[in-house]
Amino acid sequence: MFISHTKITVRYAETDQMGIAHHSNYFIWFEVGRDDFLRHIGTYYSKVEENGMMLPLIDAKCTYKSPARYFEDLYVNTYIKEMTAIRIVFGYSVEKSDSKIILAEGETVHVWVNKKFKPVSLKKHLPDVYNVLESAAK
Amino acid sequence: MFISHTKITVRYAETDQMGIAHHSNYFIWFEVGRDDFLRHIGTYYSKVEENGMMLPLIDAKCTYKSPARYFEDLYVNTYIKEMTAIRIVFGYSVEKSDSKIILAEGETVHVWVNKKFKPVSLKKHLPDVYNVLESAAK
Amino acid sequence: MFISHTKITVRYAETDQMGIAHHSNYFIWFEVGRDDFLRHIGTYYSKVEENGMMLPLIDAKCTYKSPARYFEDLYVNTYIKEMTAIRIVFGYSVEKSDSKIILAEGETVHVWVNKKFKPVSLKKHLPDVYNVLESAAK
Amino acid sequence: MFISHTKITVRYAETDQMGIAHHSNYFIWFEVGRDDFLRHIGTYYSKVEENGMMLPLIDAKCTYKSPARYFEDLYVNTYIKEMTAIRIVFGYSVEKSDSKIILAEGETVHVWVNKKFKPVSLKKHLPDVYNVLESAAK
Repeated sequence: MFISHTKITVRYAETDQMGIAHHSNYFIWFEVGRDDFLRHIGTYYSKVEENGMMLPLIDAKCTYKSPARYFEDLYVNTYIKEMTAIRIVFGYSVEKSDSKIILAEGETVHVWVNKKFKPVSLKKHLPDVYNVLESAAK
Repeated sequence: MFISHTKITVRYAETDQMGIAHHSNYFIWFEVGRDDFLRHIGTYYSKVEENGMMLPLIDAKCTYKSPARYFEDLYVNTYIKEMTAIRIVFGYSVEKSDSKIILAEGETVHVWVNKKFKPVSLKKHLPDVYNVLESAAK
Repeated sequence: MFISHTKITVRYAETDQMGIAHHSNYFIWFEVGRDDFLRHIGTYYSKVEENGMMLPLIDAKCTYKSPARYFEDLYVNTYIKEMTAIRIVFGYSVEKSDSKIILAEGETVHVWVNKKFKPVSLKKHLPDVYNVLESAAK
Repeated sequence: MFISHTKITVRYAETDQMGIAHHSNYFIWFEVGRDDFLRHIGTYYSKVEENGMMLPLIDAKCTYKSPARYFEDLYVNTYIKEMTAIRIVFGYSVEKSDSKIILAEGETVHVWVNKKFKPVSLKKHLPDVYNVLESAAK
């Protein structure tokens, strides 16, 4: 199973008045990790969209263990938890780059759709992308 | 059980290049709903923080059923799913204000902490707030 | 000259660790004000985009006089500063709803473009919209 | 004059339904550039805040020349335009990392304040930081 490690630095704009990174940002960081994961395996998401397919979420969750703070360097670790021809589940962990402490873990569930948001089979429409993903999931 | 209904209009900045509201915004909308819920029952969250307590998340999830689009009027419906002296779970649904179609449902789990992020009993430190919440949860 | 007054409540996610609303949000609030201004004069921006035209920014500025804080009710006041067939300048002020203190003032400059981001004349392509804007600018 | 070059990749969440990076993000990118600039010259902004001083904005502006798109690699170039003991002006340009095309230019004006948002002299309170900034500005 391939796992990508994407470096993130907590932005000031991402903090809130509790003095920690606002929880909504983790879902944006997951996305940054996901895009980097896809780039690593040679499947740019921008190319996927240019080929008429999109990958919206149907489910997202995050468990917060310890707060992230301004200017901390983090790693977003991304991997494929499971996948079928029309559906893909990504798993994530966010860890501090120095101490390796896990700050959060999460998961997003996606379906492959066309430009009209109708579910379509990735395996059928973009078999090359499907195969690359399947290899990375193993 | 008290349920608040908070009107939201999808902001242009909240859309992404899929032409829909980005999924991370739902967690911000849940928060807007939560703050409005608290205001409705007479417990301003700003007052809670002034009293030295905060309510960070330990868990968040959202199920997306149908996309929200720019300038659509939505309702964020918020209620308390369960609570103890140190922990509270809020439930949410996001619905279109005209058609009443449910676009998303979610849940956030929080713990009451002090300024040093140590869990503390709300019942003990702010019993008035605890009682109001408990009534709203019934 | 028509001026719209749009109510905004500062969201928790919009605060930063200084304990104030992050400065980048004012540009999002200006946009919310602008969309509400257009709605008030009967020109939905979503309709404009459906008609193949968009209104990207070429310039934005904001002067911050006093910080906005969590859960404060604000008004975004929006008006047209000047306009031609291809260009429009909106002016904004952000004021506290209770004290009427002005927290910030700003301006955004836009050009009308087609879907390929080529500048086009609004007067020529959507004369009805142009006329409504011109009336509101007087 | 020292200029820092900070790499940014446009995040999907930063796009809007025009298919370009939303204009409000440039002010967040400027901040990322500013923090990186300070780190480069050995003055972490987090340390400044720990020493009881903050650097809020009193003015921000951006001129947009060409849109930034999803997953494009950009450089945020940051430098000090002018400074006094209580005030500092940063200048920025955002350029595409491959073509060196300038997408945007901007400026932010800040004042040094204490925790109560009262203006204070950086030169007096943190002379070391002041000296480092002054050297970088030359």
